[in-house]
Amino acid sequence: MTSSDKLSVKQARQAEAIGQQATLQGWVRTRRDSKGGFSFLEINDGSCLSNIQIIVDADLPNYESDVKRLSAGCSISVRGEVKESGGRGQATEMLAKELIVHGWADPESYPLQKKRHSMEKLREWAHLRPRTNTFGAVMRVRNRIGRSIHDFFQERDFLYTHTPIITASDCEGAGEMFRVTTIDPAMPPKDDKGEIDYTQDFFDRPSYLTVSGQLEGEIYATALGKIYTFGPTFRAENSNTSRHLAEFWMVEPEMAFCELTDNMDLAEAFLKRVVADVRQDCEEDLQFFQDRIDDTVHESLANVADKPFERVTYTTAIELLENADAKFEFPVKWGVDLQAEHERYLTEQHFKSPVILYDYPATIKPFYMRVNDEDEQGRRTVRAMDVLVPRVGEIIGGSQREERLEVLEARMAEQSLDPEEYWWYIDLRRYGTVPHSGFGLGLERMVQFVTGMSNIRDVIPFPRTPGNADF
Amino acid sequence: MTSSDKLSVKQARQAEAIGQQATLQGWVRTRRDSKGGFSFLEINDGSCLSNIQIIVDADLPNYESDVKRLSAGCSISVRGEVKESGGRGQATEMLAKELIVHGWADPESYPLQKKRHSMEKLREWAHLRPRTNTFGAVMRVRNRIGRSIHDFFQERDFLYTHTPIITASDCEGAGEMFRVTTIDPAMPPKDDKGEIDYTQDFFDRPSYLTVSGQLEGEIYATALGKIYTFGPTFRAENSNTSRHLAEFWMVEPEMAFCELTDNMDLAEAFLKRVVADVRQDCEEDLQFFQDRIDDTVHESLANVADKPFERVTYTTAIELLENADAKFEFPVKWGVDLQAEHERYLTEQHFKSPVILYDYPATIKPFYMRVNDEDEQGRRTVRAMDVLVPRVGEIIGGSQREERLEVLEARMAEQSLDPEEYWWYIDLRRYGTVPHSGFGLGLERMVQFVTGMSNIRDVIPFPRTPGNADF
Repeated sequence: MTSSDKLSVKQARQAEAIGQQATLQGWVRTRRDSKGGFSFLEINDGSCLSNIQIIVDADLPNYESDVKRLSAGCSISVRGEVKESGGRGQATEMLAKELIVHGWADPESYPLQKKRHSMEKLREWAHLRPRTNTFGAVMRVRNRIGRSIHDFFQERDFLYTHTPIITASDCEGAGEMFRVTTIDPAMPPKDDKGEIDYTQDFFDRPSYLTVSGQLEGEIYATALGKIYTFGPTFRAENSNTSRHLAEFWMVEPEMAFCELTDNMDLAEAFLKRVVADVRQDCEEDLQFFQDRIDDTVHESLANVADKPFERVTYTTAIELLENADAKFEFPVKWGVDLQAEHERYLTEQHFKSPVILYDYPATIKPFYMRVNDEDEQGRRTVRAMDVLVPRVGEIIGGSQREERLEVLEARMAEQSLDPEEYWWYIDLRRYGTVPHSGFGLGLERMVQFVTGMSNIRDVIPFPRTPGNADF
Repeated sequence: MTSSDKLSVKQARQAEAIGQQATLQGWVRTRRDSKGGFSFLEINDGSCLSNIQIIVDADLPNYESDVKRLSAGCSISVRGEVKESGGRGQATEMLAKELIVHGWADPESYPLQKKRHSMEKLREWAHLRPRTNTFGAVMRVRNRIGRSIHDFFQERDFLYTHTPIITASDCEGAGEMFRVTTIDPAMPPKDDKGEIDYTQDFFDRPSYLTVSGQLEGEIYATALGKIYTFGPTFRAENSNTSRHLAEFWMVEPEMAFCELTDNMDLAEAFLKRVVADVRQDCEEDLQFFQDRIDDTVHESLANVADKPFERVTYTTAIELLENADAKFEFPVKWGVDLQAEHERYLTEQHFKSPVILYDYPATIKPFYMRVNDEDEQGRRTVRAMDVLVPRVGEIIGGSQREERLEVLEARMAEQSLDPEEYWWYIDLRRYGTVPHSGFGLGLERMVQFVTGMSNIRDVIPFPRTPGNADF
């Protein structure tokens, strides 16, 4: 069996393949034996959601010894002619001339039998779940989103920049962080005061996993103009919810000579592009999610693709919420952080479209966001923006950064941050400072939005949560 | 000054820009005042290596107050007409009609003055070094390589897959790993035997930073066919050399239904493609590296692009080395691991081309590589391959994986690995196993090869090495 005539299942399902001699390789999903002296196999190779049907005639030499023993999960190569199919919903099928079994899958022990398994159970089988329809579809969509992210920024001449994963600085002074260490906690080195001697740790000081590449991204944006990061970030929060992961992937563009309005324009164009690409290239997978997972998938995506995003200030949003004909668990008033219920009300009920909120109270936002002048009520806001989408709520958070040295230093003092720890960040304002902006998109939230998958653990290959780091 | 007519320096340097009214934004590299009543500025914005010259007439209202104070590192926006340049080596220049200063850079304290700085010094200024010609060029090339990596695999329908960064399994049973923890080493929880109670750590057990995504990549390849990872990997080796980083980026494709020859073909096509893309799109930066960093850059790249890679077995390579008219520090004989001097002899002296060595002794390779039959001397090899290139030596390492359950289990027993810790990896051989292969490319080694940069710390934005995790 040569490999030069290999086709993927996706290729073999195209009408153009009809009449070709080809080799298909994949995993058996089902076998059905006909009384007429042949068998039907459904095989899948991950190239698309659909299987292709293989018709195996009983006169194949290994029909009794091999073909009749095939069951779900077995791996095979099969050679034959691609033919037009008489079956409903399938354009093509293959008539097998030769079939080789690479690996068996004992039906007594192979976990993925035809019956449906719960998402919880499949998480325990993280090494097998990509063989299911749902996780295959999630992975193809996740891949398409990742590709789209790179294409979008590369076409706009952004430089893909790798900010550090291990860092001795605590970006934002916020968030619980994982320590990275080579110290043996059973025998830690101590100094003469009896305290842990971190000068003997690998990096000579306490070091952590990054919670964001933003501050380092600003270094590169203020040197090279436009950059983006796309990498893993970490939170050591002990929260066992369907919305949180200890390890997740984030995209963070950062642009020099860029103010908040340009930042909003970019975020909107970015989401629209990702959605357009997925709709174009993952039609079959999206239909699967619409049918099996969440019947608002098509509508949510159309919403992002077709409508201009609403843009309203935080202050306006608070007024809308105060006057809303809706009951909220958490009361709203100017100065509070919005809860998911408020965000969803705005995007799902009030505007029925994606919304960008901007100009948030300075008191609820980090030190690096650019400060606006006080309004007539003496309220101070910063140039923050959050993009909200139906079902998921906040999907992007960003801001224009404070580029004025004195204002930044004053904000750091307000928040009791030690300027010495941020010496390099402050230097960016000391030497050739420029207006600049950026935002962050959590990849998993985006995959959830696109697929309708409700638990964030089911849109990443190997979810890390409290108590879970297997595989 | 509107932003709608913004051009990057790269765009403004094109002949097509001549005659346009445009806004340029960037950082001043030099200022020179003419006695004729005007000044010349060179500005750079990171879009390309070259600066563009701005001519500022003394009749600009802020000529004395602003323009005459400009120095290296100041940030400006300037509006004017792009004109054909009379100067040598520059196609265009701009005649300024308006100039705004965004940020000053006190020449008394700004570190990046005209004089050249050592690479060591620039590492201390990791927040400013991307503003230099060398690091700007490195970053543009690094970005182009990253883009090329994604394009290459996406065009071949590989799925971009995120394998875990934090893991409780120790891939390969090899390499020193960083521990990831939320335990306070000053007050670690202990069990009733007085030992550290890892059930109280975040993941309920000792957890580490990954050294490779390969084993998890195999999970996805044996479900979805063809995948690749592109992410950070870690080594806690205490080696302070110009070749090692504690944190680096790796690309790891993995293919089901793929044997070693296909794997070699893919690796060769991959390197050729990356080199072709960089040569096409980074001409100016490559010329800079050729002129300033290493005068073999062009030749090395041509070598990869134009010649088919030599392919020889490890056994043949040993014979060549034993008969070589060269002195080696480390003696060679069948069964030893090749040293950099041997690899460089083969690729630089003997073949004068990239070389793929394959079929290495089983004793020097990990358990997961596919075992060949013994040769007539009773020597056992595995289907490993290494791609060697001039100057850098090994740039890719890969193998066909052992897909036979019994053989894999025997190899694990030989290497005293506990099969229970690899239960899921073994399951891949138990259920629908297939021939499969993959390889790994270290991104930083590739950037070094392309740019000629001799120290690996200078091809990544924020190098992590023993004692260094600043920024």
